[in-house]
Amino acid sequence: MVRRVRRSSEKIGLAPGTAVYLGEPSDEPLRITLLDYDEDHVTERVLDALVESFPFRDSPSVSWINVDGLHDVASIEAIAGHFGLHPLAVEDVVHTGQRPKAEDYEESLFIVLRMLSYNDSTENVDDEQVSLVLGPGFVLSFQERTGDVFDGVRARIRNDKGRIRHAKADYLAYSVIDAVVDQYFVVLERLGDRVEALGEEVSERADPSKLEEIRRLKRELLFLRKSIWPLREVLSGIQRGESPLFDEHTLIYLRDVYDHTIQVIDTVETYRDMMAGLLDVYLTSVSNRMNEVMKVLTVIATIFIPMTFVAGVYGMNFAHMPELSWRYGYFGALGVMGAVALGMVAYFKRKGWF
Amino acid sequence: MVRRVRRSSEKIGLAPGTAVYLGEPSDEPLRITLLDYDEDHVTERVLDALVESFPFRDSPSVSWINVDGLHDVASIEAIAGHFGLHPLAVEDVVHTGQRPKAEDYEESLFIVLRMLSYNDSTENVDDEQVSLVLGPGFVLSFQERTGDVFDGVRARIRNDKGRIRHAKADYLAYSVIDAVVDQYFVVLERLGDRVEALGEEVSERADPSKLEEIRRLKRELLFLRKSIWPLREVLSGIQRGESPLFDEHTLIYLRDVYDHTIQVIDTVETYRDMMAGLLDVYLTSVSNRMNEVMKVLTVIATIFIPMTFVAGVYGMNFAHMPELSWRYGYFGALGVMGAVALGMVAYFKRKGWF
Amino acid sequence: MVRRVRRSSEKIGLAPGTAVYLGEPSDEPLRITLLDYDEDHVTERVLDALVESFPFRDSPSVSWINVDGLHDVASIEAIAGHFGLHPLAVEDVVHTGQRPKAEDYEESLFIVLRMLSYNDSTENVDDEQVSLVLGPGFVLSFQERTGDVFDGVRARIRNDKGRIRHAKADYLAYSVIDAVVDQYFVVLERLGDRVEALGEEVSERADPSKLEEIRRLKRELLFLRKSIWPLREVLSGIQRGESPLFDEHTLIYLRDVYDHTIQVIDTVETYRDMMAGLLDVYLTSVSNRMNEVMKVLTVIATIFIPMTFVAGVYGMNFAHMPELSWRYGYFGALGVMGAVALGMVAYFKRKGWF
Amino acid sequence: MVRRVRRSSEKIGLAPGTAVYLGEPSDEPLRITLLDYDEDHVTERVLDALVESFPFRDSPSVSWINVDGLHDVASIEAIAGHFGLHPLAVEDVVHTGQRPKAEDYEESLFIVLRMLSYNDSTENVDDEQVSLVLGPGFVLSFQERTGDVFDGVRARIRNDKGRIRHAKADYLAYSVIDAVVDQYFVVLERLGDRVEALGEEVSERADPSKLEEIRRLKRELLFLRKSIWPLREVLSGIQRGESPLFDEHTLIYLRDVYDHTIQVIDTVETYRDMMAGLLDVYLTSVSNRMNEVMKVLTVIATIFIPMTFVAGVYGMNFAHMPELSWRYGYFGALGVMGAVALGMVAYFKRKGWF
Amino acid sequence: MVRRVRRSSEKIGLAPGTAVYLGEPSDEPLRITLLDYDEDHVTERVLDALVESFPFRDSPSVSWINVDGLHDVASIEAIAGHFGLHPLAVEDVVHTGQRPKAEDYEESLFIVLRMLSYNDSTENVDDEQVSLVLGPGFVLSFQERTGDVFDGVRARIRNDKGRIRHAKADYLAYSVIDAVVDQYFVVLERLGDRVEALGEEVSERADPSKLEEIRRLKRELLFLRKSIWPLREVLSGIQRGESPLFDEHTLIYLRDVYDHTIQVIDTVETYRDMMAGLLDVYLTSVSNRMNEVMKVLTVIATIFIPMTFVAGVYGMNFAHMPELSWRYGYFGALGVMGAVALGMVAYFKRKGWF
Repeated sequence: MVRRVRRSSEKIGLAPGTAVYLGEPSDEPLRITLLDYDEDHVTERVLDALVESFPFRDSPSVSWINVDGLHDVASIEAIAGHFGLHPLAVEDVVHTGQRPKAEDYEESLFIVLRMLSYNDSTENVDDEQVSLVLGPGFVLSFQERTGDVFDGVRARIRNDKGRIRHAKADYLAYSVIDAVVDQYFVVLERLGDRVEALGEEVSERADPSKLEEIRRLKRELLFLRKSIWPLREVLSGIQRGESPLFDEHTLIYLRDVYDHTIQVIDTVETYRDMMAGLLDVYLTSVSNRMNEVMKVLTVIATIFIPMTFVAGVYGMNFAHMPELSWRYGYFGALGVMGAVALGMVAYFKRKGWF
Repeated sequence: MVRRVRRSSEKIGLAPGTAVYLGEPSDEPLRITLLDYDEDHVTERVLDALVESFPFRDSPSVSWINVDGLHDVASIEAIAGHFGLHPLAVEDVVHTGQRPKAEDYEESLFIVLRMLSYNDSTENVDDEQVSLVLGPGFVLSFQERTGDVFDGVRARIRNDKGRIRHAKADYLAYSVIDAVVDQYFVVLERLGDRVEALGEEVSERADPSKLEEIRRLKRELLFLRKSIWPLREVLSGIQRGESPLFDEHTLIYLRDVYDHTIQVIDTVETYRDMMAGLLDVYLTSVSNRMNEVMKVLTVIATIFIPMTFVAGVYGMNFAHMPELSWRYGYFGALGVMGAVALGMVAYFKRKGWF
Repeated sequence: MVRRVRRSSEKIGLAPGTAVYLGEPSDEPLRITLLDYDEDHVTERVLDALVESFPFRDSPSVSWINVDGLHDVASIEAIAGHFGLHPLAVEDVVHTGQRPKAEDYEESLFIVLRMLSYNDSTENVDDEQVSLVLGPGFVLSFQERTGDVFDGVRARIRNDKGRIRHAKADYLAYSVIDAVVDQYFVVLERLGDRVEALGEEVSERADPSKLEEIRRLKRELLFLRKSIWPLREVLSGIQRGESPLFDEHTLIYLRDVYDHTIQVIDTVETYRDMMAGLLDVYLTSVSNRMNEVMKVLTVIATIFIPMTFVAGVYGMNFAHMPELSWRYGYFGALGVMGAVALGMVAYFKRKGWF
Repeated sequence: MVRRVRRSSEKIGLAPGTAVYLGEPSDEPLRITLLDYDEDHVTERVLDALVESFPFRDSPSVSWINVDGLHDVASIEAIAGHFGLHPLAVEDVVHTGQRPKAEDYEESLFIVLRMLSYNDSTENVDDEQVSLVLGPGFVLSFQERTGDVFDGVRARIRNDKGRIRHAKADYLAYSVIDAVVDQYFVVLERLGDRVEALGEEVSERADPSKLEEIRRLKRELLFLRKSIWPLREVLSGIQRGESPLFDEHTLIYLRDVYDHTIQVIDTVETYRDMMAGLLDVYLTSVSNRMNEVMKVLTVIATIFIPMTFVAGVYGMNFAHMPELSWRYGYFGALGVMGAVALGMVAYFKRKGWF
Repeated sequence: MVRRVRRSSEKIGLAPGTAVYLGEPSDEPLRITLLDYDEDHVTERVLDALVESFPFRDSPSVSWINVDGLHDVASIEAIAGHFGLHPLAVEDVVHTGQRPKAEDYEESLFIVLRMLSYNDSTENVDDEQVSLVLGPGFVLSFQERTGDVFDGVRARIRNDKGRIRHAKADYLAYSVIDAVVDQYFVVLERLGDRVEALGEEVSERADPSKLEEIRRLKRELLFLRKSIWPLREVLSGIQRGESPLFDEHTLIYLRDVYDHTIQVIDTVETYRDMMAGLLDVYLTSVSNRMNEVMKVLTVIATIFIPMTFVAGVYGMNFAHMPELSWRYGYFGALGVMGAVALGMVAYFKRKGWF
């Protein structure tokens, strides 16, 4: 969790709207890809220079300009400036670690999303900030790293599947958001598998490593919740339809994404409830086992204590101890001890103590 | 609980509105039944081909077309298309595991419900998604499996009981929802019996199997709550009366279902409160018993320890130990031990320690 | 608690608005009493036949028709029908176990209340459903059993005390609600006495029977809360004044009942907080006592263990043990033991361990 | 807490608006004081008869009539009647134990406040109901007992300090409310001192008397919260400005009192949080100490057990035990025992067990 | 925490709007600095007398008058009076310990902020009240002490960085608020480091000093939350745009600060969640270690008890004990003891008890 609280103190004292990149510096140029389409054509290519993207702002077709990498702040400011993005929004693009939000800057809509993916090697949920700018006729998207969950969207554009080629830029923006939310289900599924497996393991055998695992899962779920929860408001805000950039038809689709988000949140909450229950199971199981151990040991000790006492009595060195000289004194004593032991065992059994 | 989080990752990358069936595939045709009625006539039959249902969209009578099974996605899309359902709604029909919701598509109202039933053999609550489409003059219903809770509704139509034959399609939709909600009471009753029985069992004898049962019941109740809670919003949404498909008279009936839903939720919450209390009772009872055991055993040990000490003293081999040669030294020692034991017992008794 | 979750499964499959009585069947006729009054006259009598009540619907005076018993569903439907009650409301009248609610059927207002009373013999809170119908010029009230909390209202009518004889039917309805809410204070007072007494008992002596009592009281308070909480909404709903049946003057009085309801809820919540605290006190007290016992016993054991060891040492049979032949070896050994014991006692004392 | 739940059952059956005094009866007359002022004059005196107050209702100056004592219900009804108070309000005046509330009766505003004070001898928070009636040109105030927190207000009137002499009756009402709220800070300060002191005491030494003190403080804070919380709504209600009795200028001052109330509530909540933490500290501290004791004692016992075993072995009476006849057998045995003891101590130390 | 609940009882009885300074008295004059600028010039100086500030109220340029120190109440009242501040606001300026709030006095907007900073020596969060007055063309700021977080703002003004020199006084006010909120991130970062470090330390080694540290951090976070939470409302209140002093352009910037505040609150809540989890980890870890100790010790004791019993048996002094005279009786007995011990160890191992 902690690792994800981004460092913001480096920005102290700078003018608002000053974009500061928080990640590792790099000399590589940004990777800018263009996908321009309408009903009749599709153009897809990697741009060599950012200025190549400029004409597409006013092209009649729908243009999707995707930028991978945020280390070259100057270039990002240049593109953003050309496409009319507010400096404060640019600041949010590069200053990753924002909560999901939507900001309406009249001529464009700025949306921040958290793209999540399950990392199989670390068993953590990785996240990346995706910033969308929806303008009339174009969608600008900024990602921290190359690699995303939008291949399905691209394929649908290329192959003219579904409505996308016949729709406007707002439908493209919707499709991107939808792809991000769809990925949440995949992440949830993986976490769900772990919750399920852990549930079985804990009720079978509760050892401290399970506790660590419970804590890690709880933190992952807390993180998920924090990343997804604000999206609900974002989507319902857009849906209430203040922005003219979304037409009514697309809003129906957005309502669908909204429903999915609610479903994701619902499931996260269910998992959180289950994890809370799991901790109880763990603690109860540990304490049960401990009690079991203590009880059996105490019972053993208790059975021997009276027997040892009898042995002690006949170990005394009094001159006059009649039993000592009896023929079967010794065996009598052993018998008494055995009887005491059996009596106590019987008593404990009857009481159901072990 | 976990078993019910539906797998959604298979859909990743598909266009929105692409219907994907999540259940087991089957070659059987869908079972489509028609119930067409007005004040004067009732027609009820199983349709051989889905096209037979098409004319009923525009018939002046009320037509209820029920589809059992969702595996034949193409057919469902065909019917849904004919009856003017939005592709996103079709997607929700076959993609089971939706939360209850109502979506207004102008010319039709799409409602998703969770039909619950108590499975006596597994002692679980089974659930099934029922999707309703209310249009002018028709109700379309989709179920996952054959077998439902609507026999009462069908009987009222056949036998002309109540208002149903004299009312429009909206009253039919209401009747179907009402039947689903009425079934919740049956499920709750069964769970209530188990809660009650468990309450008695736990206060009598708390063993770990009870704990498992408590956890299972808690999960069932959590599941119930999740299935029913959103219905409240759904019904109050419809009631606020945006849809022209429901006339004012039927809304009064809908308010009644709404009341029932609140009552169900109320009862679920009460059961949840009681279950939480039950866990406390269980834990207190376990710890009480444990304390009892430990206390008695410790007391026994404590009584014998001083006695054993006395025996140990007179077991020492010192050359000069005057008591050893006393005539009644041995009996004196036994007496001392007895006195110590009785004294401690008396002290413990007075303190109320056992 | 459980006992109060009414069985509703018997109704499954019946048409909405079908009134089903849940209580024990009886052949006795319903007891119908009439109280008809205006400024100048009061008529009070038990009606022999229900048709006798019919003319009072349209009489210019205020008529209060009270029905005790709900087993004769046909008669109730007859009266309700004559007074213009909706079938769904009739269903709620006989199907007891409803939450408090108010439903506006234009020409009449239907109100469901829970009448509570403290049963001294079972130490439980008994409850009964009271259904009110307020129409222009009449109030219809239905109770499950003979015996109610309205004697004060009747006396004020008979003796012309207060405003009641000079006011309309809405004031009568208010007076009935007020009487029900006033009774809540009495019930709360009794429960308050028990909470108070229990508080003292638990801090004095925590035994398991107290735990049972705590649980019972918590359940009673949970039940009270469930019965009273919805009334708040009911009253504020009426107050917002949609119904023309309540005139503005009476609404001021209704605001007063609303205040009382808030006060009752407040007190219930306070008691619930106190009960929660009481459970903590109980558990702390039990665990304190247990700790006390264990500590003292362990201390005793610990003191004797080193002494017994010393005795053991001199009980060894080595040929060469110089101390054994010392003149005062025995007393020296006893002295050592005593010194060890005193030393440990002193140490424990200084540490404050007992 | 319980002591403050007022008995209301005595009122059962009485007509609404019947004023019933709950306190101890008394034959003393009520103490009625008058403070009449405008910019130019101040009149302050104790009235001999209540009728003397009547002319001040319509005097052009601001009149503050304060009544100490509520036992003479008839007189209170007389004054209240003359000043046009609604019977339901009069009922609330004498029926102490009301929650803070404001009721708008068109020509007057009726406000109920809880006046709190810290009682140094009982270490409890005492409370008293203050009922205010604000009319055009007059403020009526009713208190349970002589003695209040309004001396500062009176002094400001007498000495013409601040705006009060130049303002209307609404400013006087504000000043009275302000004085009540200011007193909350004093009470909070005293409770805060105790919370602080308790915090130090508990972390130093946790004994059961501290637990009792924690519980008492928690109850006091619960009580405070219950008394103050509704005031927030009351003040924001008045501020929303429906009443023409408060002019806009005074509303700015009222906003200030509102802020103070929020601050008080905030602090109460902080103290409650701290108290909850304190209970945790207490319990942890008790259990830590207990664990410490048990651990040390168990360690001592455990060290001696193997040593005693060795002594037991050489106390056996076998004919052939070679060690017994060794020259240094005894010292060897002692050495073995010492080595075992040291070994265990070292082991425990290394494990960090004591 | 407690230290921060300011003493307010000294004000009891004073007229509202009477400014009372709560800090330590001082004879030093207040330090008043002026920063006057527009696009073309910047004037920055320390004023010798407060009257020097007066002309800047109506200057066409933007004037920022900052006052360090609140001990000279008369001077503050003089400045405030000249700049048209309401007496109630002046009271809040010197009466430090206010919650963040914004009050609209038509011609000026009064804003109270909490300036936080992390004190490395005490490891506490220090706080100071900053009161802002935004008027047309000027910003007045009052601080408790010299030293603040506004150097970045001043530098931007001096060096003409960003928009500030080209904007109005509202942008200056925004910049000051922004600087305060930015500092929250720094404080959070420091606390985050401690939370993180503590998390590692506790899971490695749980000793009571960690508990103390957990409690201190929880209190710091509670304090932070209390200081920051109300700011959310303050900013959204200003944003809803009632005040004409903020122009639309600046409101976009204010929305940005609002977002930051939400982010800070979010992070505080996350830390609080983590701290709560940490306490659980601590308690579990302590109890695990305790259990471990007790278990091992009990096991050791239990193994020796039967062995000691055997030794006791052969220490008995019966005349006829055949084994005693056996040639290898002694070694046989030792063998039996060893076998018993090994058997128990094996049993415990197999059960997984140690």
